[in-house]
Amino acid sequence: MTAASPPPVIVLVRPQLGENIGKAARAMLNFGLTELRLVSPRDGWPNPDAGPASAGADVVLANAAVFETLAEAVADCTTIYATTVRKRGVTKPVLTPEAAAQEVHASTGRSAYVFGPERSGLETDDVALAHTIITVPINPQFGSLNLAQAVILLAYEWSKHVSGDGEGGVALASPPDVPLDPPAPHAELEELIGHLVRDLDKSGYFFPPERRDATLRTLRTTLTKTGWSHNDIRMMHGIVTALGRAPRSR
Amino acid sequence: MTAASPPPVIVLVRPQLGENIGKAARAMLNFGLTELRLVSPRDGWPNPDAGPASAGADVVLANAAVFETLAEAVADCTTIYATTVRKRGVTKPVLTPEAAAQEVHASTGRSAYVFGPERSGLETDDVALAHTIITVPINPQFGSLNLAQAVILLAYEWSKHVSGDGEGGVALASPPDVPLDPPAPHAELEELIGHLVRDLDKSGYFFPPERRDATLRTLRTTLTKTGWSHNDIRMMHGIVTALGRAPRSR
Repeated sequence: MTAASPPPVIVLVRPQLGENIGKAARAMLNFGLTELRLVSPRDGWPNPDAGPASAGADVVLANAAVFETLAEAVADCTTIYATTVRKRGVTKPVLTPEAAAQEVHASTGRSAYVFGPERSGLETDDVALAHTIITVPINPQFGSLNLAQAVILLAYEWSKHVSGDGEGGVALASPPDVPLDPPAPHAELEELIGHLVRDLDKSGYFFPPERRDATLRTLRTTLTKTGWSHNDIRMMHGIVTALGRAPRSR
Repeated sequence: MTAASPPPVIVLVRPQLGENIGKAARAMLNFGLTELRLVSPRDGWPNPDAGPASAGADVVLANAAVFETLAEAVADCTTIYATTVRKRGVTKPVLTPEAAAQEVHASTGRSAYVFGPERSGLETDDVALAHTIITVPINPQFGSLNLAQAVILLAYEWSKHVSGDGEGGVALASPPDVPLDPPAPHAELEELIGHLVRDLDKSGYFFPPERRDATLRTLRTTLTKTGWSHNDIRMMHGIVTALGRAPRSR
């Protein structure tokens, strides 16, 4: 038996229309994805427009989990992929759906594919939380991809590498090399960032105050890209604590 | 320079809803396909529901050609691909969207991707006219793919093999090959480690002293895996310095 990487979670951030949530659920189930998470859906949840649009993918909708923030929605995920079309001033690796699918299958942790609201896409703060950006190579003169279509392209690429062994589960054609010290779940990184920010606030690091948000975003990007494991993060907590305390007498 | 094969024609056979024709046009243009042909659309042509659903792909709709029969619609095509989900009692080669796209790009003649009506799919007589069947590998328990989604998957696979050399074809926007903020030369990381170790030594972090080398090795591993750029490292210098200094008066 081969060790399978878990299928990616699909996270819709502030989706506007219930119809689009339903269509996304349908696209997911077409290619065997079932775990849907919603961050602050505009019209609340459940949404009566979602069911009819899902064309029978009710099981995906019934199990959808709702969260207040993206950080909470991906707390148990080790690798977070933000889907964007436009270039943003964010310096993160950019992958095609194909390359991202290969990464997801090689990972032992949970991955999340994160999609922004229909009209505006993901905000910079959402993207800052991701490790990697997925961009679908698209006609530059006509790059507006609707939500369910973006979902289906990513689900389709993911499904290509799945070998069907029935059994409800998913087995890989070739087992991944298991990294010895895999990235920690996102919640652990959030705790480290929280620790750091508390101490930095005390030290007056964020100056001038109006630059705090932008600096924090840069800091988050720097820490998110590290791929730090549970042990790395534990060590960094110790370092932050040590740096903040007065020198011991010798 | 390689001779480019013509992009495939998209043929919708007896489409029912104008909205779906519009969505199919949008999906086509997303991936650089512009030639749409309609065989006996149920509600005639033009259809007022198509434009709004195309989200701006009006040029595809305006140039759509209407035919009475599939045979007429593909009269100028050398290879005809019928898209079906269900197995039919027809003995023809069956390809994935990926394999079909490779064939289309290798061909010098025109190819047609033929899609059936929303509810029923292509009839046996339509399939009989095709050289090859394209089947999207899909969840066998949930195989209902809507028309525009089937179109976008085939258009997307075709677009992957398009080389962006202009020449009447459409150059697709691709993720950059070069990471925007590449890892810094190793010497910069060494400087950061040196800075950190000096401050940690002062704070008494390395305790007991005989564990110093082992702890330092772990710290080095943690920092080496980050992939930090010049800018990341500069920020981390600032953070180490800030954490070590006394809180500012408020």
